[in-house]
Amino acid sequence: MNETRIHQARKGILTDEMQAVARQENLSPEFIAEGLAKGHIVITRNNKRTDIAPLGIGKGLSIKINANIGTSRDLLDIEGELEKARVAVEAGAHTVMDLSTGGDLPAIRKDVMKAAPVPLGTVPFYEAAARALDKHSSFCLLTEDELFDVIEDHLASGVDFLTVHCGVTLGTLGRMEKEGRIMDMVSRGGALTAAWMRYNEKDNPLFTSFDRLVELSARYDATLSLGDGFRPGATGDATDRAQLHELITLGELQQHALEQGVQVMVEGPGHVPLDQVQANVLLQKRLCHEAPFYVLGPLVTDLAPGYDHITGAIGGAVAAWAGADFLCYVTPAEHLRLPDVDDVRQGVMASRIAAVAGELARGMPGTREREHKMSKARRMQDWDAQYELAIDPTVARGRRGEAPPADESVCSMCGEFCAIKVQNDAKEAKAAKTAKT
Amino acid sequence: MNETRIHQARKGILTDEMQAVARQENLSPEFIAEGLAKGHIVITRNNKRTDIAPLGIGKGLSIKINANIGTSRDLLDIEGELEKARVAVEAGAHTVMDLSTGGDLPAIRKDVMKAAPVPLGTVPFYEAAARALDKHSSFCLLTEDELFDVIEDHLASGVDFLTVHCGVTLGTLGRMEKEGRIMDMVSRGGALTAAWMRYNEKDNPLFTSFDRLVELSARYDATLSLGDGFRPGATGDATDRAQLHELITLGELQQHALEQGVQVMVEGPGHVPLDQVQANVLLQKRLCHEAPFYVLGPLVTDLAPGYDHITGAIGGAVAAWAGADFLCYVTPAEHLRLPDVDDVRQGVMASRIAAVAGELARGMPGTREREHKMSKARRMQDWDAQYELAIDPTVARGRRGEAPPADESVCSMCGEFCAIKVQNDAKEAKAAKTAKT
Repeated sequence: MNETRIHQARKGILTDEMQAVARQENLSPEFIAEGLAKGHIVITRNNKRTDIAPLGIGKGLSIKINANIGTSRDLLDIEGELEKARVAVEAGAHTVMDLSTGGDLPAIRKDVMKAAPVPLGTVPFYEAAARALDKHSSFCLLTEDELFDVIEDHLASGVDFLTVHCGVTLGTLGRMEKEGRIMDMVSRGGALTAAWMRYNEKDNPLFTSFDRLVELSARYDATLSLGDGFRPGATGDATDRAQLHELITLGELQQHALEQGVQVMVEGPGHVPLDQVQANVLLQKRLCHEAPFYVLGPLVTDLAPGYDHITGAIGGAVAAWAGADFLCYVTPAEHLRLPDVDDVRQGVMASRIAAVAGELARGMPGTREREHKMSKARRMQDWDAQYELAIDPTVARGRRGEAPPADESVCSMCGEFCAIKVQNDAKEAKAAKTAKT
Repeated sequence: MNETRIHQARKGILTDEMQAVARQENLSPEFIAEGLAKGHIVITRNNKRTDIAPLGIGKGLSIKINANIGTSRDLLDIEGELEKARVAVEAGAHTVMDLSTGGDLPAIRKDVMKAAPVPLGTVPFYEAAARALDKHSSFCLLTEDELFDVIEDHLASGVDFLTVHCGVTLGTLGRMEKEGRIMDMVSRGGALTAAWMRYNEKDNPLFTSFDRLVELSARYDATLSLGDGFRPGATGDATDRAQLHELITLGELQQHALEQGVQVMVEGPGHVPLDQVQANVLLQKRLCHEAPFYVLGPLVTDLAPGYDHITGAIGGAVAAWAGADFLCYVTPAEHLRLPDVDDVRQGVMASRIAAVAGELARGMPGTREREHKMSKARRMQDWDAQYELAIDPTVARGRRGEAPPADESVCSMCGEFCAIKVQNDAKEAKAAKTAKT
């Protein structure tokens, strides 16, 4: 196997990439190298993809956001999906996942890389299933070699991280069926894999041939993002036997890949009541040896379709505080339809809020300083500074502009009874009164 | 003093009101009476206001939402504010606070009560300050009697709960000044009171004459909502000496009012980093003897103006989980301008999401059942049941309708690769294959 950045880190080589990540994070290159060597940090960049900046994800680093885009077989508006990718990056997403299942998938992937010059993630099983559906008329007739061909295609085309549902095994599937669940599986890749396994009466090739995957990833120094096929799809299914059993498998695979010098992230739930979020992070960190944790949401209630960016921001903030490293955005369209451009923007912003709330709760110095600057700008009624420091300057400026106050220094909410103005005025009045007497 | 519902509860009388609240909450009247007697539950209804249903707030009850509306002296669109009150109640707000400071305030209050047939809260100091501004040209020249006249007017007109900043004392003010703060005071009522105190070199009449307040409240069986004038207005000011010193005072006043048979809620922060939210709830519950806790947000970051309904939902969910009983909504307009009708609707929905997330985390049976029903409806791809169970059926239905999928059973996000559909189909395919062999 070729030398990966984990091998380099273990030899104490501080590469340009490690130095670049260290600068971005305001940390030492030694810290980054140590994190890489231990598997606590990944740098997501395929070694074929030198046109993008390397991105660090993991322990001690700022929290990162991913935005999913992609065609479905129903909705094949490629230009629309590229626009979403651009909007996501503009709004502050650090990575994009192309989850397309409809159209010329390799061509779309290439276009997404151009539109979004950030690390790209994919789920190769989708393309494998789509190809098999076209070729064999059922994705269940997909062969193992066809699957690995697609994976190699993705890596050769420069994909930086691959979501692979290696933990969907017959052993876990049986356990899920025996215990019973409200929603069974809701992971698209997980459900496709399970369906393939049931039909073929065979275990998951991504599990049985995990070494093939490790070898391919090493060749491109790509990151394996171990998907959670059994992630709960209902708050009532959270933290159950199937989820935990899969997590144990993912920890075993993570350990094995790390030994081979391959970077691993682990994906996590899903639909999780608020009181279980912290435990979920702790379990992932413990069972997967502090590998970076990539969470989808978590969504803390099932009752708010149309607002899942908010339910996801609640769960994401608490997960980030507890140690999650990478938040997959959830848009207001979740559970209802393919998101549009505005949904994408709202989803990224909600995740950024969750990330910042988590960073502040963890006491991350950069975030704390930015908070103080914002608070001071508010105290000084310095509106321009407030807009500049805001997560979304455009929206902040726009909203105030819609109803400008009579007195420029305040806002139309309290007008002349603005608490800040009242205090400033009272001090002046008191001084004037004292001067008179 | 006349007999209040606390006195009745202590005698073991189970009034119609207690029975009504018990039915709403699916609890026994004895539980409600015991909560009232101990001050853990309040029933917010002025005894002059028999046209609305009584509302229980406090320990063991479902979490309630308040929406603020009101004119400012800059923006005097009374019909607009009434529309906001109507929209807030339609969206699910349990109470409305009229925080008007501009226009004919008693007339506006009367109209709000008609528009929003739910318990009404006010901050009498605003009207007192507005009257003094008109009469004396400075609110600092307000007299104690004038202030209590306004309070009596509010109660006589049927106001159900009064926010009174009784804990803004010279002792706490001095402490805040000595320690220093980024934002000083951001509570409008608190800042006005402090300015009055500084100007007049006198302590707060709502503190020094607290018994006058207690007596008036008892007469109308209204609830005192002890305001937190020193609530932090910056995440960096959270949980500081001034805030805690005021909370100690509020606990003393709560104890005294409770002894006199007067219902008390206590208001809480504000801008609080996520890691301090739980501690804030614990401190309030301990220092104020488990009086109902009414929180504003908390906002877990200062960096998201334009999205403070989301920062508030994050803090509100964690506070609700930790034991907060009553959430004051925060709208996307917070810190920027007076909210419009759409902001009000979004603010209420975000708070409802926080409340449900908190209830689920606490394991409240009604919420847990509703979650399970929703998850099952999703599993069955029963869209009508999903809309019906959704916090906001209109938005859920509307969003899916914007991009209907080719296959009616799924949504356009995953189309035919819908995880639920894939599993159902795979089971059928497997059965067909088995039947053939």
